Amino acid sequence: MSQVPSPGARRIPDATIRRLPAYLRALERSSLSRMTSGELGQLTGFSSEQVRKDLAYFGAFGTRGVGYEVPALAREIRRILGLDREVLAVLVGAGHLGTALLRYSQFSSQDVQVAAAFDVDPRVVGTTIGRVVVEPLEHLEERVQELGARIGIVAVPAGAANAVGERLTRAGVRAILNFAPVTICQACPEVVVHNIDLALELQALAYFVTVTPDKSLAVERDL
Amino acid sequence: MSQVPSPGARRIPDATIRRLPAYLRALERSSLSRMTSGELGQLTGFSSEQVRKDLAYFGAFGTRGVGYEVPALAREIRRILGLDREVLAVLVGAGHLGTALLRYSQFSSQDVQVAAAFDVDPRVVGTTIGRVVVEPLEHLEERVQELGARIGIVAVPAGAANAVGERLTRAGVRAILNFAPVTICQACPEVVVHNIDLALELQALAYFVTVTPDKSLAVERDL
Repeated sequence: MSQVPSPGARRIPDATIRRLPAYLRALERSSLSRMTSGELGQLTGFSSEQVRKDLAYFGAFGTRGVGYEVPALAREIRRILGLDREVLAVLVGAGHLGTALLRYSQFSSQDVQVAAAFDVDPRVVGTTIGRVVVEPLEHLEERVQELGARIGIVAVPAGAANAVGERLTRAGVRAILNFAPVTICQACPEVVVHNIDLALELQALAYFVTVTPDKSLAVERDL
Repeated sequence: MSQVPSPGARRIPDATIRRLPAYLRALERSSLSRMTSGELGQLTGFSSEQVRKDLAYFGAFGTRGVGYEVPALAREIRRILGLDREVLAVLVGAGHLGTALLRYSQFSSQDVQVAAAFDVDPRVVGTTIGRVVVEPLEHLEERVQELGARIGIVAVPAGAANAVGERLTRAGVRAILNFAPVTICQACPEVVVHNIDLALELQALAYFVTVTPDKSLAVERDL
C-alpha cells in the first residue's frame, strides 16, 4: 500500500470519498430507475455541481438531461468503495460511545461489519453489546490477525488513543476511525486516520449562529 | 440571517470552518509563542498549504518565515467562530449516543455549553446525565426560547429526526448537529445542518483498505 500516486492516477479528494456513501444510500433507498445529479443532490443535501464533480472522478456515468442509471451507479459506487466484498472492523473502547456504536445497527452492517470489541474494564469484558461479546484488550492483536480486520474504531479516552492506534496498525489495520480528541498515528504512514471530534463539530457550529459584521453566512455547504 | 452573500464577502468553504476548531485547540494547547503553518499543520494533521489557505480567508495573520503569533491567532479564531461569547446548545435524544455526548466533558465546554437535554422515554426523563437533568420533550420549545439556545443536537432515531429538527428550528435554533442517518430540515433554509453519520464514515473507510487496480491511495487528506 503506497502513499505515492500511481502514474496517471488523479488525486481523489478525501471529501469526495466521504460523500460517496451518502450517494450510495440515497440510490439504494430510491425506487427510481434513473436520477439526475440534481435529484441525487436534493436527497443528500449537496449541490448538483458537487454530485457531478464527485462522480466525474470515477468516469462519466450520467447522460446529460437523462441522468444516472440508479442500479448501475449504486453498483459502481459499491465497487469503488470496496463494499462489493465484506470488510471487517474492530472497535476498541466499549464505553458510552462504543456501546452506542455497537448498538446502532446501521453502523455495523453487512457492508462493514464490526466483528469484535475490546475494553480494559473487567466489568465490561464478557458482556454482549449489539452482536459482539466484549473481549479483553490483550486479545487485540491476535483477533485482528485472525479476523483479517482492516478497519479499527478508536473510542477510548484521549490518553490511551495513540497507543491503541499504533497497536491496531501493527496488527494489520489500515484505516482508523478515531473518536478521541487527539491526533493519533502520526508515526504510522501506512494507516489512514479519519477523526470524528464531536467537541470540534459543536464549536464549528458556533460560527453559524453568531453573526458578526465581517462575516457572511454564505458558506458553501460542501460536506 | 441571510443565505445571500453580503457584497464583497468571500465564500468561506464549510470545510474551512470545520478545521478552525482544530487549529484553535492546537494553538491553545501549545506553549509556543509563535508557530509556522507547517507546525500548526503537523499538530492538526493538515498540510501547511491547507493551513495557510484556510487562515487567508480571514486576513493575513502570519509573517513569512516567522509564523503566526499563537495567542493572537487563537484569539482571532475564537472571535471568528463566535466563541468569544457563550453559545448554548440543547440535545434531543438521551439514548446511548446522547448519553455519551452529555458525559463527554469536552463536548459541553465553556465554549459551547449543552444546557438542556430532552427525551420521550419516561425512564430517562428526570435522570441526571453529565451536568443536565433530562426533561420531557414537550418542554423543548419553551426551554429553547428561555435559554436563547441557538444550537440543537439531534440524537434521536431516524424516524423522529426531521420532526425534531423542525421543532428546534421553529423554536429559534439556527444550527443543528444531526446524528440521525437521514437528511433533515430540507424545508428550513434558516438553519444550517451538519450531519455526522457514523455508518457512512465507516463505509468511507472501506475505500482505503480495499485496493483495486484502478484505485490510487493517494487521496488528499483534507479533512
